[in-house]
Amino acid sequence: MGPTGRRGRPRSEAADARILDAALESLLDRGYDRFSVDEVAMQAGVAKTTLYRRWPTKDHLIVTVVARLQDSVPVEYTGDVRADLTHYLGEIVAGLHRMRQAGRPATSGDASAGLVAEVAAAAARHADVGAAVQAMFHRRNALVLTLLEHAREHGELHADVEPEVLFDQLAGALYYRLLVTGRPIDEAYVDRLVASTLRGASA
Amino acid sequence: MGPTGRRGRPRSEAADARILDAALESLLDRGYDRFSVDEVAMQAGVAKTTLYRRWPTKDHLIVTVVARLQDSVPVEYTGDVRADLTHYLGEIVAGLHRMRQAGRPATSGDASAGLVAEVAAAAARHADVGAAVQAMFHRRNALVLTLLEHAREHGELHADVEPEVLFDQLAGALYYRLLVTGRPIDEAYVDRLVASTLRGASA
Repeated sequence: MGPTGRRGRPRSEAADARILDAALESLLDRGYDRFSVDEVAMQAGVAKTTLYRRWPTKDHLIVTVVARLQDSVPVEYTGDVRADLTHYLGEIVAGLHRMRQAGRPATSGDASAGLVAEVAAAAARHADVGAAVQAMFHRRNALVLTLLEHAREHGELHADVEPEVLFDQLAGALYYRLLVTGRPIDEAYVDRLVASTLRGASA
Repeated sequence: MGPTGRRGRPRSEAADARILDAALESLLDRGYDRFSVDEVAMQAGVAKTTLYRRWPTKDHLIVTVVARLQDSVPVEYTGDVRADLTHYLGEIVAGLHRMRQAGRPATSGDASAGLVAEVAAAAARHADVGAAVQAMFHRRNALVLTLLEHAREHGELHADVEPEVLFDQLAGALYYRLLVTGRPIDEAYVDRLVASTLRGASA
């Protein structure tokens, strides 16, 4: 549309940022169950209708908050694929633990997947939430797949490595421990996982 | 307790089996949301109080049903670790698809994780359900870890392979695709996953 055309009201990015900041704070503080869209609107100083027009349900708002968290983590190939993957998975683990503990006492030593499991369940329950979650991971994971492709081009990985499968092995192991087996995930585990995945097992 | 000691009333294994059969049928037919413990009691011909004494909530009953499904899948080392893993993961995939589609039309082509995500969320929400789910996977996965140890002893895997990490890479990738990215999981994917995991990536 040309400069003389009629323009719609510019979307208020400042209001969006205020909403998402307030939503993140509320989510980490209260957890999934007690997270309230109305309270977020109040905290952000926007009309509830404004908020609901953009995020029709609590789950939609939460997915956007989580996507924004993920986007704060850079992905870069530095020429050392082992170090790069270890660093990136460490960031994923930190983010998962943060989400896992949302709304729970900081001293909580239990293994519950918390908010991570709630988001997975919301995605399974509502097709549009599921599509939003999948789009978020598709977009994020594309960055890591590009990193792995660069490592392959630089000769750090076998020429016939499949980046998608390789990343499933890495990220999958982390989510599996968090969502299914409840086994602990720490730096030492990330090191073992990266070593095992890059090295392979067949004698 | 000796043969002359007083014995408690023998637990009715027949009643348990009737309950669990009815529960499985109801679960696959109705899905998580519409699954009803009262209906299962009626179908199995047992008093509701009997059922609730043994499984205090719907989630506890569902976890037992899923554990029983898992126990129907044998795990055996035949001397060919690639074939054994491919076979076992194929069974896991079939079980996941069955649970995923519980309560939904058979023609449903969507990628929702369905019941699998609901069980993960229930495990995250209730500490005792979480403990039951983790115990179930701990018990089942121990069989696969033993299989991998045998493969290691037979020289099919490197001597320093860590079975737990290796199995996380395999099972994790499947659950990650189902619960997080929504990417399809089929036989061809299982083949690629096993090949990638056993072979390793570093050039």
